[in-house]
Amino acid sequence: MSVAGQLVLGIDPGTAITGYGLVRGQGEALALVEYGIITTPADESLAARLVMLYRRLLELIAQHRPDAVAVEELFFAQNTRTALAVGQARGVVLLAAANAGLPVHEYTPLQVKQSLTGYGRAAKAQVQQMVRWLLHLEQIPQPDDAADALAVAICHLRATQVSLLLRESGNRAIRESGLC
Amino acid sequence: MSVAGQLVLGIDPGTAITGYGLVRGQGEALALVEYGIITTPADESLAARLVMLYRRLLELIAQHRPDAVAVEELFFAQNTRTALAVGQARGVVLLAAANAGLPVHEYTPLQVKQSLTGYGRAAKAQVQQMVRWLLHLEQIPQPDDAADALAVAICHLRATQVSLLLRESGNRAIRESGLC
Repeated sequence: MSVAGQLVLGIDPGTAITGYGLVRGQGEALALVEYGIITTPADESLAARLVMLYRRLLELIAQHRPDAVAVEELFFAQNTRTALAVGQARGVVLLAAANAGLPVHEYTPLQVKQSLTGYGRAAKAQVQQMVRWLLHLEQIPQPDDAADALAVAICHLRATQVSLLLRESGNRAIRESGLC
Repeated sequence: MSVAGQLVLGIDPGTAITGYGLVRGQGEALALVEYGIITTPADESLAARLVMLYRRLLELIAQHRPDAVAVEELFFAQNTRTALAVGQARGVVLLAAANAGLPVHEYTPLQVKQSLTGYGRAAKAQVQQMVRWLLHLEQIPQPDDAADALAVAICHLRATQVSLLLRESGNRAIRESGLC
């Protein structure tokens, strides 16, 4: 599959709000396909909310047929309670993607910031401005969960493109060297 | 459904090791049906490991057809990294139970300790000794993950029995009062 046609579903998991963003890589350019959030009602049981999230993700995947899913790899959270809650939603996201047969790619917050702004310690606002600029949007996508999901999708598209370019230049170097 | 025939699947979630224990409530007595652990290989991707856990849980549920699933409700963990890892497995456990149409009951560690030992701050070893004694086992089930899963299953059976007894005594009090 060429990078040009690659459609990536980026996800920012949460039990109350899960952000998602679909971005297509067109050569070096990127095109926004859709973004939004999946919310679940606070008065439902946790199990019921996770089922809602799981089904909505499978619907999104069936509707758009992305080539890959990208999720931020979290090591830190404000506190263990938040980490548990995010972890539960994250487990369901990874399961939905894998059960749908899609490869799942994980990137650290540092990788996402580095990829979009060139600086691993960039502020959240700078990353969001880059999402807006790279996708030719008039405004930063709202809410933050959707913007974060788009950022990790873009990060994956760029990582794929870099590895393709490296492989091509490697092949060219090998051809020019007369090794094959 | 009477408590006598209720089969409960207790689960202690984890990505590397998930403990499970099936206990049947027979009147006031409890009978061990099976216990064990589900392990996933560390060299697989997280998504692949969560899929393995999900499938094994669905197999267990299909094989034993429990009436309910009981899981410990965690608010604290050693650190946020552990909490995220446990949360991911926990999300998959809750999803598997709910997708199989089973009610999921959550109990805090305090409730489990209180139920088994009568003391909410009991040591882990005391809870495990009670699991051994209540299920008429010669030794404490190993590993800890399995013993913890059996403990939460027993906690749920006892909670169900208490609420049934209260309802019955309430009905008797109403009958004796001549209200119906």
